[in-house]
Amino acid sequence: MSAPSPRTQQALRQRNLSLALRAVAAGGPLSRAAVAARIGMTRAGVAAVVDELLRAGLLVELGPGRPGTVGRPGSALALNDRGPCGLGAEIGVDHLAVCAVDLRGRIRARVAADAANRDRPPGPVLARLAGLIEQVTDEVRGEGLTPTGLTVAVPGLIARDESTVVRAPNLGWQGVDLGPLLPSAPPARVGNEANLGALAEQRLAGSAGPGGPAEPRGAGGGGEAATGTGPAGTGTGTSGTGTGADGTSGPGPGRHFLHVSAEIGIGAAVVMDGELLRGAHGFAGELGHVPVRPQGRPCVCGGRGCLEQYAGEEAVLRASGIDPGRARAEHPGPGGRIAMLSARAAGGDALVRAALREAGGALGVAIAGTVNVLDPEAVVLGGAHAGLAPWVVPAVERELGRRVADPARTVRLTVSALGAEGPLLGAALSVVDAVMEAPGTVAAG
Amino acid sequence: MSAPSPRTQQALRQRNLSLALRAVAAGGPLSRAAVAARIGMTRAGVAAVVDELLRAGLLVELGPGRPGTVGRPGSALALNDRGPCGLGAEIGVDHLAVCAVDLRGRIRARVAADAANRDRPPGPVLARLAGLIEQVTDEVRGEGLTPTGLTVAVPGLIARDESTVVRAPNLGWQGVDLGPLLPSAPPARVGNEANLGALAEQRLAGSAGPGGPAEPRGAGGGGEAATGTGPAGTGTGTSGTGTGADGTSGPGPGRHFLHVSAEIGIGAAVVMDGELLRGAHGFAGELGHVPVRPQGRPCVCGGRGCLEQYAGEEAVLRASGIDPGRARAEHPGPGGRIAMLSARAAGGDALVRAALREAGGALGVAIAGTVNVLDPEAVVLGGAHAGLAPWVVPAVERELGRRVADPARTVRLTVSALGAEGPLLGAALSVVDAVMEAPGTVAAG
Repeated sequence: MSAPSPRTQQALRQRNLSLALRAVAAGGPLSRAAVAARIGMTRAGVAAVVDELLRAGLLVELGPGRPGTVGRPGSALALNDRGPCGLGAEIGVDHLAVCAVDLRGRIRARVAADAANRDRPPGPVLARLAGLIEQVTDEVRGEGLTPTGLTVAVPGLIARDESTVVRAPNLGWQGVDLGPLLPSAPPARVGNEANLGALAEQRLAGSAGPGGPAEPRGAGGGGEAATGTGPAGTGTGTSGTGTGADGTSGPGPGRHFLHVSAEIGIGAAVVMDGELLRGAHGFAGELGHVPVRPQGRPCVCGGRGCLEQYAGEEAVLRASGIDPGRARAEHPGPGGRIAMLSARAAGGDALVRAALREAGGALGVAIAGTVNVLDPEAVVLGGAHAGLAPWVVPAVERELGRRVADPARTVRLTVSALGAEGPLLGAALSVVDAVMEAPGTVAAG
Repeated sequence: MSAPSPRTQQALRQRNLSLALRAVAAGGPLSRAAVAARIGMTRAGVAAVVDELLRAGLLVELGPGRPGTVGRPGSALALNDRGPCGLGAEIGVDHLAVCAVDLRGRIRARVAADAANRDRPPGPVLARLAGLIEQVTDEVRGEGLTPTGLTVAVPGLIARDESTVVRAPNLGWQGVDLGPLLPSAPPARVGNEANLGALAEQRLAGSAGPGGPAEPRGAGGGGEAATGTGPAGTGTGTSGTGTGADGTSGPGPGRHFLHVSAEIGIGAAVVMDGELLRGAHGFAGELGHVPVRPQGRPCVCGGRGCLEQYAGEEAVLRASGIDPGRARAEHPGPGGRIAMLSARAAGGDALVRAALREAGGALGVAIAGTVNVLDPEAVVLGGAHAGLAPWVVPAVERELGRRVADPARTVRLTVSALGAEGPLLGAALSVVDAVMEAPGTVAAG
């Protein structure tokens, strides 16, 4: 039994700053009176809180006569377009990428580079990444933005210290602390790519959990975010989809969902009650090692018949009669093989289509078992599977239909609009989340 | 984004009552000063709270000179042995049982009866159960205890209304609201047996989550609780095992565990961060329908190769060369077939031993997949598997060792001391939990 957490003045101040900032993020531009009404504070109290957010450069005042805000009395407050921003980086098996998102969750800069990271030691990989981080930092600083943090997405198990890669088999890394290899500023942390992909999905669908900027689904949504500098969601509309009496919610993945993410390997993120489920060691979500053919092919993990051996990139290439090494050489970079497989399937290649059906079937078995244990309301296929959805999804649906047969239970299967871009975007959004959670820690830019 | 929850006077009062009551439950007998120190309230504040708990009959005053409390100054407060109590009931496929536990979690009365409930309509089953409930109620009233609530454990999916059985295939019930069939007083609710079994496990191991009476592991533990009226844990010692920096805890199942529960079918409860994971519809934990031989035997659920088809009671009997119908007739009642199988395996019956090994292997595959997705720190085998542990556990361990191979991750596999008694005890403990959570709702007895 734990004692009640002390509600200090400092914690109260932080909470009020966070509430006011989120109110503007979700519904801005807003007058001080509107902020006060939304968060249930007095106007005098809000005035002090808003002053602090203005001083920290998190909000700006648009002035009463701003066009487009007719009907809103008082000076309108908006998130600062030139204030703090979040940096996200991604270490893929064959690429590196870095982006910056502003407080609205819009991508303001993005660079990517092909890179042969498989079995390459962390030192040189992170040295190259540092160059990309510097490039993005310079670019956003030129626009008046200040990076307040960096999150690095890695396809592997990350320790609870958010710094050590416990095991990233497809990179060949084990027990490596990336902390000393990352830039000393802004503060950096390392996260699992599937978890960060799920975060992006959750934020952009508007069903924000407790931590998020609550960008609404819709206008300027995921598809555009994936392509470059377009808005990853606009600051208008209402936030959150609400939760029905049965604990489920409307559009978006909702409060209970499984986000499946494939690059070279297959990972997943489990979100229950709006919260990412991390597990005892922070390793939750290893869907790629769920047995789908228990006596089947040996896996790098030491097991047999793991999902990754049937639905991972290499397995699909082999089943398509394509040599994986050659495919990597001829179609390098992130999405290279996916684009090739997608083109062949679209062109009617029977072998590729059969391989994708088999991958979908294996995926369906693993997802069905997980759905029976976790009872999510939605399953989102992200990463590479998003790009191959037309050929993978029917087989997944067939398995789910057979194995999760229950008239009282509906599981929506959706395809991520973010696709392979999710982890990178989620990494940067996680920094913005932290700002929204504790705005008082951000110094004026 | 949600508004801050209003912290009303009423909510504050309820919380203080709960904190004081739990402090006594975890560490009692305690003086008022000791309670004040433990929960961080002033002594004047605690005095008022304690008065209310005394009036409601939840606490009693032992007096300053009580033997055994030497060294504790002031009048000692203890949980009332003759105060409110919780009723638990269990509807099994072939038995009914009812028990009452007091505020300390000690079983004070218990009755059980063999019953052929398979495919019997709910009406007569609940009429018979009502008779047992009355019997236990009379018995505890004679000891001065007052039942404040009733929880009924059912082997099936329970709707979020905690009243409707959505599907209990082994009883043959579907979409039945048990509410109107239960006694009108005390207030009753229906729960899933695997979830309630996990609750009992958690409470008795001392790693109480937010809701519990936090009985410590150790003296008078689970084994005795299962046999009758012995203490299910004594009120001494410290509560909670604490949580290490890595999110794991010491003894007991900890804050992240999977509790596997088998009677006729196989269910599981998932506890993450000390909280039972319910899922979007309240159906989480259907481990029995995780595919372990995807192209294998057809299952009643409509799927193929579900765990239940390889490790459920009927499957084990068939694989042992025993006709399930005949076995049920010759070895009726709860535990009848388990005792028979256990005796045969102990006697060296090779067929039974092989059947149990195969069941353990199938169980290991399903658990391994679940462990990879959820990353619990422990897996507890409860229900029938507890009674067959010597022959089932090695095969489970072998599969876990092969399939959850990770030097950084340790998963403890333990066997429940409660065995098949867990759900019944958990049902009654859930009522006590509710009292601990909201003591202000309990009227003076």
